[in-house]
Amino acid sequence: MKIDINSDIGEHFGIYKLGDDSALMRVITSANIACGFHAGDPVTMKETVKLALDNGVSIGAHPGFNDREGFGRRNMTMKPEEITALMLYQIGALDAFVKAAGGTLQHVKPHGALYNMAAVDESMALAIVSAIHQYNSNLELYGLAGSMLENAAKEIGIPFKSEVFADRNVDDQGLLIPRTHAKAVIHDVDICAKRIIEMVTNRRVLSLDGNWVPMRAETICVHGDHVEAIAFANKLVEILKANAIDITSK
Amino acid sequence: MKIDINSDIGEHFGIYKLGDDSALMRVITSANIACGFHAGDPVTMKETVKLALDNGVSIGAHPGFNDREGFGRRNMTMKPEEITALMLYQIGALDAFVKAAGGTLQHVKPHGALYNMAAVDESMALAIVSAIHQYNSNLELYGLAGSMLENAAKEIGIPFKSEVFADRNVDDQGLLIPRTHAKAVIHDVDICAKRIIEMVTNRRVLSLDGNWVPMRAETICVHGDHVEAIAFANKLVEILKANAIDITSK
Amino acid sequence: MKIDINSDIGEHFGIYKLGDDSALMRVITSANIACGFHAGDPVTMKETVKLALDNGVSIGAHPGFNDREGFGRRNMTMKPEEITALMLYQIGALDAFVKAAGGTLQHVKPHGALYNMAAVDESMALAIVSAIHQYNSNLELYGLAGSMLENAAKEIGIPFKSEVFADRNVDDQGLLIPRTHAKAVIHDVDICAKRIIEMVTNRRVLSLDGNWVPMRAETICVHGDHVEAIAFANKLVEILKANAIDITSK
Amino acid sequence: MKIDINSDIGEHFGIYKLGDDSALMRVITSANIACGFHAGDPVTMKETVKLALDNGVSIGAHPGFNDREGFGRRNMTMKPEEITALMLYQIGALDAFVKAAGGTLQHVKPHGALYNMAAVDESMALAIVSAIHQYNSNLELYGLAGSMLENAAKEIGIPFKSEVFADRNVDDQGLLIPRTHAKAVIHDVDICAKRIIEMVTNRRVLSLDGNWVPMRAETICVHGDHVEAIAFANKLVEILKANAIDITSK
Repeated sequence: MKIDINSDIGEHFGIYKLGDDSALMRVITSANIACGFHAGDPVTMKETVKLALDNGVSIGAHPGFNDREGFGRRNMTMKPEEITALMLYQIGALDAFVKAAGGTLQHVKPHGALYNMAAVDESMALAIVSAIHQYNSNLELYGLAGSMLENAAKEIGIPFKSEVFADRNVDDQGLLIPRTHAKAVIHDVDICAKRIIEMVTNRRVLSLDGNWVPMRAETICVHGDHVEAIAFANKLVEILKANAIDITSK
Repeated sequence: MKIDINSDIGEHFGIYKLGDDSALMRVITSANIACGFHAGDPVTMKETVKLALDNGVSIGAHPGFNDREGFGRRNMTMKPEEITALMLYQIGALDAFVKAAGGTLQHVKPHGALYNMAAVDESMALAIVSAIHQYNSNLELYGLAGSMLENAAKEIGIPFKSEVFADRNVDDQGLLIPRTHAKAVIHDVDICAKRIIEMVTNRRVLSLDGNWVPMRAETICVHGDHVEAIAFANKLVEILKANAIDITSK
Repeated sequence: MKIDINSDIGEHFGIYKLGDDSALMRVITSANIACGFHAGDPVTMKETVKLALDNGVSIGAHPGFNDREGFGRRNMTMKPEEITALMLYQIGALDAFVKAAGGTLQHVKPHGALYNMAAVDESMALAIVSAIHQYNSNLELYGLAGSMLENAAKEIGIPFKSEVFADRNVDDQGLLIPRTHAKAVIHDVDICAKRIIEMVTNRRVLSLDGNWVPMRAETICVHGDHVEAIAFANKLVEILKANAIDITSK
Repeated sequence: MKIDINSDIGEHFGIYKLGDDSALMRVITSANIACGFHAGDPVTMKETVKLALDNGVSIGAHPGFNDREGFGRRNMTMKPEEITALMLYQIGALDAFVKAAGGTLQHVKPHGALYNMAAVDESMALAIVSAIHQYNSNLELYGLAGSMLENAAKEIGIPFKSEVFADRNVDDQGLLIPRTHAKAVIHDVDICAKRIIEMVTNRRVLSLDGNWVPMRAETICVHGDHVEAIAFANKLVEILKANAIDITSK
């Protein structure tokens, strides 16, 4: 029984800081490092790669839309060939710092609107997977469990890690309850841990309506943008370990 | 007897076109491809890499300052660690498209103000060379003959190709006569060719004041931004070949 | 009987040129000047405003999405308050050059995806009109005839100029036939002129299916991105004048 | 006896926050609002203008180099006509929000490297002042006491407010002791206040070498990027008021 813990990281920009990367690096096993489009910049990328290597954390590229002002969270309509080029550019840029530091790139996780749009848009999902496949077909794609990204990864032939969100309720189809819903987020870390354990052990989760839904959890996304988030992640990891679940990116 | 012919290429951006890359690719042996900072964008980079491979032209990264409005021609004061990160980012981004297309990156040539500042600024030159060395110490650096970039390449230990400008007069130190000077540019292609032949054969060139100056020419920079420039480059290559000089990037 | 002829202009960027603004300025009566987001830059804006004033052409702001690489043609999802701020920023920036040159800003025409999205999205249309109203309620909005922009202008209370495209077929609802359709564009300038005359005289136009559709034409958009486009515009204006239609922005 | 207290403000960007603007607004009499180039964005500008008006704080434009990654602190070589256009663009953009909110723009203060370069470069100073004069010759320029900006303002004919830094030592020419010097910054707020009082009352200040240097203080720059800075500013204002110095932007 094992699970990977990933987080978006290196999302500073110039003079601006975001999140406590040092604290977060001590909890997670995989770091999704921003690639300079939605967040991050060359110096930040260099420093964040070093921080990950120093902490023994596996490194992934975290490419996003070229929309720094919107932090990559605003939908943009791009052609599939534009998406593929967008991905290749950012993966290569991040990998340069990984190579320079003597490390190895492990995975790719699209950011924000790119992640969400591709989860339900087949041509975007294929454009993303195609870029990874062209660059290095051993790179793992991190994507929403059961999404178009998972389908595309299987179709084109790259490894896929099924991502779940520890603190989010899902519907009977296994889709995330939108954040606008009052019960979208689960705040009790014990409940969250129990759900993860169920997913890892029995590949299922309880929907908001009380039904068992199939759900494969290979990596959990945690946040580091405020102190409570890091405390939550630490507590979650502690409970999982106590339940004999190995925390690892391998 | 041999010489490489290089040109800056792939400097389109979005809807905007610059130069006739297809025509230029048939003349040159090395392409310095813009990396999305001073010019170029992911889609353009992908297409330009393909165009180079289709034409059997060696590929180099052409990183510049993050100043698209000024086309990377305006001086910016950046710290050495910022320069190193700037270089790594752009080299990696371009290399992603080269890898995806099954090619090999051959060289790096800094662009515009970055090239000119580093030619005379030791710490910038070292920061640039350090980035290349960290990324891949087999990559060649293209830089001004006799410049700080040449010194830095020797000091840190990466291959260097000494670049000359076919159509420019030099002073007794071998430095380019500024473009503001009436005799900065030589317009007669036969004279230009004769000068190149002298550099390749006897490693020297006549200064504007009529003195022989040591000058090692391993690669010549030609331009492709207007029709005459490409005709000039074609004619130059023709004369060099007629004089038993091999045109090659090897 | 009168009509205004408008065109998007000042869409250069840094070293990159787009279209022949000088030729176009001699044909049109209203210039929609790019504001530095989808195209244009401060120096270009300054020069284009001067060119318009020198040619007696009325000046409008032409704000777009902050997506230079996509030339403002890619849809972006922005909140209404973001749209209002986006508009205010660009209108003010352009107006600074107009004021500095002693001119007066006449109108605002949203660009590309912003124009198209707002034509059918009420909240975007209201956000755009609200910005104009807050800045100067005497500014005219140029928008697609019969669109949400027209409704919003009436609702909030700013002047509106109903825009038609001289060379485009419409359906029975008066909506543009998409460019993907074989008969989207009308290439015969005489037919185009006849349609404009019908719109100006009888406020109607023939749909692709052969039915009369109500259509109010107060301004015609012409293009200047290639030589044929400018020749077309010149010819169109000539025919309209010969048919006693006054070409004016007033 | 009076003095103005100004601060750079509205320097957030997208998701990123910088400084406690609400706290700072309660101390200062003039706000230099970032204009979207080195910092700030349209939504931030709109909110910051409102915050200033709500607090009765006078509003100034705070334009900077187009270098968001370097926060406008890196020198860039731009031609005078580029500088003038850069200034006009940003002043107009900010003024749009001021007009929309029913306020009045009071002043302009260049940011960071633009401020520092222009302080000693006559052609840059004239380019900056020329932009302000073209836009609205009643706008005040805030610039370093005794700098080229002051000369240029007098020469072209716009109002100038002589700026001093409360906590910085100066040399015998009245120039700031560089931050690299151990005694660059004065940390004792009482000493700082005493120096301001001397400047306001007797138009002089003690240099680091112990000599009286002429120094006219019409506005003091305070910082708001950390809690101590705001406490310092509050304390300074308190002491000045206790010494019968009026705190006002008028």
